[in-house]
Amino acid sequence: PSAGWVARKHHLNKQQLWNRIVAEARLDAASEPALATFLHSVLLSHSSLEVAMSFLLANKLADDKLLGSVQVMSLFQEAYAADHSLIKAAMADLNAVLDRDPACSKFSQCLLYFKGFQAIQCYRVTHWLWRTGRKPLAHAIQSKISEIFAVDIHPAAELGRGVMLDHATGIVIGETAVVGDNVSMLHHVSLGGSGTGTGTRHPHVGHGVLLGAGVTVLGPVTVGAGSKVGAGSVVVTSLPAHCVAVGVPANIVKRNINKEP
Amino acid sequence: PSAGWVARKHHLNKQQLWNRIVAEARLDAASEPALATFLHSVLLSHSSLEVAMSFLLANKLADDKLLGSVQVMSLFQEAYAADHSLIKAAMADLNAVLDRDPACSKFSQCLLYFKGFQAIQCYRVTHWLWRTGRKPLAHAIQSKISEIFAVDIHPAAELGRGVMLDHATGIVIGETAVVGDNVSMLHHVSLGGSGTGTGTRHPHVGHGVLLGAGVTVLGPVTVGAGSKVGAGSVVVTSLPAHCVAVGVPANIVKRNINKEP
Amino acid sequence: PSAGWVARKHHLNKQQLWNRIVAEARLDAASEPALATFLHSVLLSHSSLEVAMSFLLANKLADDKLLGSVQVMSLFQEAYAADHSLIKAAMADLNAVLDRDPACSKFSQCLLYFKGFQAIQCYRVTHWLWRTGRKPLAHAIQSKISEIFAVDIHPAAELGRGVMLDHATGIVIGETAVVGDNVSMLHHVSLGGSGTGTGTRHPHVGHGVLLGAGVTVLGPVTVGAGSKVGAGSVVVTSLPAHCVAVGVPANIVKRNINKEP
Repeated sequence: PSAGWVARKHHLNKQQLWNRIVAEARLDAASEPALATFLHSVLLSHSSLEVAMSFLLANKLADDKLLGSVQVMSLFQEAYAADHSLIKAAMADLNAVLDRDPACSKFSQCLLYFKGFQAIQCYRVTHWLWRTGRKPLAHAIQSKISEIFAVDIHPAAELGRGVMLDHATGIVIGETAVVGDNVSMLHHVSLGGSGTGTGTRHPHVGHGVLLGAGVTVLGPVTVGAGSKVGAGSVVVTSLPAHCVAVGVPANIVKRNINKEP
Repeated sequence: PSAGWVARKHHLNKQQLWNRIVAEARLDAASEPALATFLHSVLLSHSSLEVAMSFLLANKLADDKLLGSVQVMSLFQEAYAADHSLIKAAMADLNAVLDRDPACSKFSQCLLYFKGFQAIQCYRVTHWLWRTGRKPLAHAIQSKISEIFAVDIHPAAELGRGVMLDHATGIVIGETAVVGDNVSMLHHVSLGGSGTGTGTRHPHVGHGVLLGAGVTVLGPVTVGAGSKVGAGSVVVTSLPAHCVAVGVPANIVKRNINKEP
Repeated sequence: PSAGWVARKHHLNKQQLWNRIVAEARLDAASEPALATFLHSVLLSHSSLEVAMSFLLANKLADDKLLGSVQVMSLFQEAYAADHSLIKAAMADLNAVLDRDPACSKFSQCLLYFKGFQAIQCYRVTHWLWRTGRKPLAHAIQSKISEIFAVDIHPAAELGRGVMLDHATGIVIGETAVVGDNVSMLHHVSLGGSGTGTGTRHPHVGHGVLLGAGVTVLGPVTVGAGSKVGAGSVVVTSLPAHCVAVGVPANIVKRNINKEP
C-alpha cells in the first residue's frame, strides 16, 4: 500500500473492462425489465466507456433550466478525448472499488450507482478544466457535484488513481490538498484548511491511506503512506507512514502496518 | 423502550390515519393557496395512503432521463400490494415521529417534508426487492435514495418498525446491520462495517435505542435495547442494554435507564 | 468579532454590488462560451440582485411535478419586496464569504455556486414566511432546502447577518436556535436540541463565532461572542466569549482571543 497505483494481474484493459460492463448490463436488463430501458440508454446504446460515462455523468449534473445535458456531455467527451489519463484514472477507481468494497461485485454497479465514484470522475473533469485555465466552468461543475452528490472537491486539489470514496456523503477536499494513489475515504471525511492564507493550507495524504468515516484532517499536515485513521478522528499534526491513529486529537496506537514484506 | 414496536392507545388505524392526513392537507390547502396544487396532486387526489406514498416517493426518486416516475410509482404500488407489512411499518414510522419529535405536530408534515421518513420508506421497498431476488433494481433505487436524500441504507439491512431518522443527512447503514423497533437516529449516524469479509460485519442495534448526531458504530457489535449514545461518539465494542455511553471511543456514563417499571 | 454586523469600508452598496456581479458575469461569459447561456439566463437578463436571486433560487428549489418554479420565484420576489432586510442580509452574507473564504474572489462565484450561501438565503425567506404565519409553506420550502442543499435550518431559528456556511453539507440548525452576526460554520455543524420539551432547547451562538467542521452544540447553551470551537468538538455546556474550545466534550484551551483592541 505504500507504493503508487499499479494495475494488478486480474485488472482488465479498457476494452475488456467495457466488454465486462456490457455483459453485466445485458444480464441485468434481461432479468429485470424495469431496468432495461435505463440500462440501454445509459450503457448498452453506447460504444465505449468514455461515451457511456459522458452520458451518465452529464445527466446527473445537468438541469434543463441552468446547464443543459447535451452541453455537459460534450464537455466530458472533449475532456476524455483531450486527456487519456482521465479514463485511465476512472478504470483504476473502478478496480479500487471492486478490490476493496465487499458490498460491490460488479463494475456496472459501481459505475451506475456509486455516487463516490461518480463524484470523483466529475471532479477529474473539473481538474482538467482548471489546468487548462477554464476556472469559471470548473467552479460551475464543482458546485453541481456538491449539490447532486454532496461531495465538495475543489478543482485545484490533486487526487491520485485508484481512489475510493465510500458512501461519500459530506466529503470535502480543499483547494491545496494532495491525495495519493489507492487512498480510501469513507463518508464525511474532510481535508480542510487552516488559517486564511492563500498558499498550501490543506493536507497531503500519502499512497494507500485509509481515512475512516468522519475523519477530519486540518491544515498543511501529512498522513504518511499506508497509514489508517480511525472513524471520527481529528488530525492536526502530521502522521508517519504505516501507523494507525485514532481519537480527538488523533494519537498513534499502532506502528509498522501495511509494510511491504 | 426495550420491547419491540406496539401501537399505543392514541395510535390510529390505517383508515383513520389517512383521514387525518387528508383533513390536515385540506386545512393547509385552504389557508395557503401556494400549496393547494401541490397538496392536491400529492395527497388530495389519491384514494389511500399507499397510493399517495407511491406517487410522492416515485416523484422524488425518478428522473426523466434515467428512471421514469410512472415506472417507479408502479413498482411502489406493486410492493405495497404484495407485502402489507410495508405500509404497517410506514404507519409505525409516522407515529414514531409524531411521538418523539417536538418540532412535528402533523402526520402530513412528516409524510410530505421529512426526508428521513421518505428515505426509510424507499429503503423498505428496496428491502422487499432484495428479499424477492431483484437485487439490481434494489441497488438502482438505493443509489437514488442516497443521491436525493443523502441517506445510504443497504437493501439487505434489516430495520424494525417505528424508526425515526431525524434530519437524516449523511446516515449510512451497512449491508449486515440489524436495527430494532423504535430506534431513533439523528443525522450523520453510521452503522459501518469493520474488516473486509463478507459475513456479518455491521452492528446490531436493539429496540428503543437512541443514537445522537454523528454517532459511528463500527463492526459486528451490539448496542443493547433502550441505550443512548451521545452525539459524536464512536462505538467499537458492544454496549449493554439501558445504558448511556459517550465519547471517542464511547464509555458508559450511566446505567439502568429506560427500564420498564 | 464580538460586535454585530457592520459594513466595512470596502463593502459596496446594493447598486454597486449588482454592477460588480454583472461585470464579473460578463467577463466569464465572454471567456467561456459553455457558460454564456447560463450566465445570461441567471444573471445578465435580470434587472436587480433581488430578481436574479429569486430566479436562481426558485430554479434550485422547484420541481415540475411538485412545486413549480414560477410559483417559487413569485414567492421570493414577494418576500424581497415586503421585507428589505432580507436583501441586506444577503449582501452581508456575500461580503462575509468574500472577506473570509480564501478560495472565493468573486461575488458572482458565491452567489451562483456556494450552496451554503444559497441555502441561507432560502432559509431567510422561510423565516419571513414563518413570522407572517405561513408555517405550512415555510415547512415545504425548508424540506426542499434540506433535499437540494443538504442543509436543514428550521424556519423559526433566528440567524444574524454576515453568516457564512462553508461547504455546508449536513448543517442542521434547530427550531429555537439563535445565531449572531458574522458567524462562520463549516459543514456538518449541528445546533441541536436536548430533551423533548417545546420551549427553548437549542443553542445561542454569539456574534463572530467560528464553529469548525462537524461541531455539535447541544441544548440551550451559549457560545460566547468571538469564540472558536475546533473541528469535531461536542459542546454541551456554555462557553464564554473570546475562547477556543476543542474536544469531545469541548474543553477551553485558550482565552482572550478576538478581543477588540
